[in-house]
Amino acid sequence: MAMDRLIQNIIEKQNPTVVGLDPKLDYIPKQILDAAFAKEGETLRGAAEAVLAYNKGIIDAVCGIVPAVKPQCAYYEAFGWEGMRVLAETVSYAKGKGMFVILDGKRNDIGSTMEAYAGAHLGIVKVGANEYEPFGGDALTVNGYLGTDGIGPLLGVCAARDRGVFVLVKTSNPSSGELQDRKLEGGETVYEAMAAKCEEWGAGSVGAFGYSAVGAVVGATWPKELAALRRLMPHTMILVPGYGAQGGGASDAAGAFDEKGLGAVVNSSRAVLTAWKKKGDDGNRFAECAAEEAIRMREDLKTVLPARIG
Amino acid sequence: MAMDRLIQNIIEKQNPTVVGLDPKLDYIPKQILDAAFAKEGETLRGAAEAVLAYNKGIIDAVCGIVPAVKPQCAYYEAFGWEGMRVLAETVSYAKGKGMFVILDGKRNDIGSTMEAYAGAHLGIVKVGANEYEPFGGDALTVNGYLGTDGIGPLLGVCAARDRGVFVLVKTSNPSSGELQDRKLEGGETVYEAMAAKCEEWGAGSVGAFGYSAVGAVVGATWPKELAALRRLMPHTMILVPGYGAQGGGASDAAGAFDEKGLGAVVNSSRAVLTAWKKKGDDGNRFAECAAEEAIRMREDLKTVLPARIG
Repeated sequence: MAMDRLIQNIIEKQNPTVVGLDPKLDYIPKQILDAAFAKEGETLRGAAEAVLAYNKGIIDAVCGIVPAVKPQCAYYEAFGWEGMRVLAETVSYAKGKGMFVILDGKRNDIGSTMEAYAGAHLGIVKVGANEYEPFGGDALTVNGYLGTDGIGPLLGVCAARDRGVFVLVKTSNPSSGELQDRKLEGGETVYEAMAAKCEEWGAGSVGAFGYSAVGAVVGATWPKELAALRRLMPHTMILVPGYGAQGGGASDAAGAFDEKGLGAVVNSSRAVLTAWKKKGDDGNRFAECAAEEAIRMREDLKTVLPARIG
Repeated sequence: MAMDRLIQNIIEKQNPTVVGLDPKLDYIPKQILDAAFAKEGETLRGAAEAVLAYNKGIIDAVCGIVPAVKPQCAYYEAFGWEGMRVLAETVSYAKGKGMFVILDGKRNDIGSTMEAYAGAHLGIVKVGANEYEPFGGDALTVNGYLGTDGIGPLLGVCAARDRGVFVLVKTSNPSSGELQDRKLEGGETVYEAMAAKCEEWGAGSVGAFGYSAVGAVVGATWPKELAALRRLMPHTMILVPGYGAQGGGASDAAGAFDEKGLGAVVNSSRAVLTAWKKKGDDGNRFAECAAEEAIRMREDLKTVLPARIG
């Protein structure tokens, strides 16, 4: 089960974190940009090549420390199909280094279309007699606004190919409450209703550690809600954005974990990717700075976790 | 204003419909597949080339009849970056034929990431001294679960570059009601709350025909709700999926229109794309069959519209 693989990685590394690969061009050292532009020009292809070189450096630096990476699809789509090409290469490279890859695409659609998304991001696509894995993620973030028949096709792929999904429940952004915090008749909030759906959708796929193939996204920016959701979704892994640059700290994320220190994986993107800037580096040590920040984050989270995770 | 351009196209063609370009391989005639595979092999590139040839044939056939096309991103992502390459080429080709292009991506994320999606799908992306238009859509479908700060960056691009968005309100799929139909405290449903947001987000961008840059997606499979939402969202264009293969007819879509026959655009994908199969054609007349179905749909909708639209 995909979440078992993620959890095994977490236990092995004693580190319940994920590095978000959100490669804005201004995060990338000038040396890398210059080299890519010298070869490919100031083009979408040049930008994509810089992103790939940068991602490989980050992955090389953190793959011994961090169990997973989370490429955010938007930052690859921004460079058109050339960006999508290096998204696929980034996934492949990270998997080659033993990392679990969460594609952050927040995809959602009606059932027949969700089948296509499931094939693209987690599955295989048949062309004539051949089979291809277009993007090859281990897990995909999804949006559950369309209900069960928008999620069903993903569950089939998760079961057949050992993959997982993370459903948006309570997002980290300031305006998440506009809809998500509204109370439904009966008293539960919209996000609590979505949390109940996660447990329902995951019911058939609970793995060795007690967590199903269906995870949830809950922001560290809402520590009280996060702790309550941990209790409300006992079989649901929580992907926790909002740590670091968005303002959440270890104590804010603490409520996401179970008593063994499992059940959650905390994301940091910007703080890891731009660590070289904060440390006053000229960009030559961008990868080492990322590793240092990944270690700092691991140690920070350990202050709220059991002595041994798992 | 982008919706003005769409509405002008609708008035000119006297046809408030959009053809969904959802190119599953089994919709594509064997002749086109064979030619692409002969050149590129049974590969993702071969599949993508077949999709492009097929799309161009459909666009050539319907561009004099239909004001807009709606490529569904999932069916391009399914062929990896090669698919995304022909998505961009399809958009460019359709715009060259004077069509309005709605990218159906249902994108959603926090503000900083939504900026990247906005640039990718509707805007421009800067690389060094150069600017690129990665996918070049006129409008993008989005999911409003994250609230205002996930929509804000799109509104900036819509204003600056004459673009539009369509927010999921009440989707066409059978399980859409699981969350969307639930009543909030106070009595309104979740989809009605989302409809109110559409009016709020669009308030600053109402164009010449009374409709804003922020449209809504409401399925023809819910005719009663569709008619009520038309009244609840007087400045919001409605993109109506669910006509045809999903079961909705002209009378089901009728409620989406205002008294001038404006305010809505009805999508058909499968019925147009696979018309050649239903007509018993061998695939050589796939484009003509698509045009015949597009005309049939236009005439069908005219039975519920004023004698002259606009």
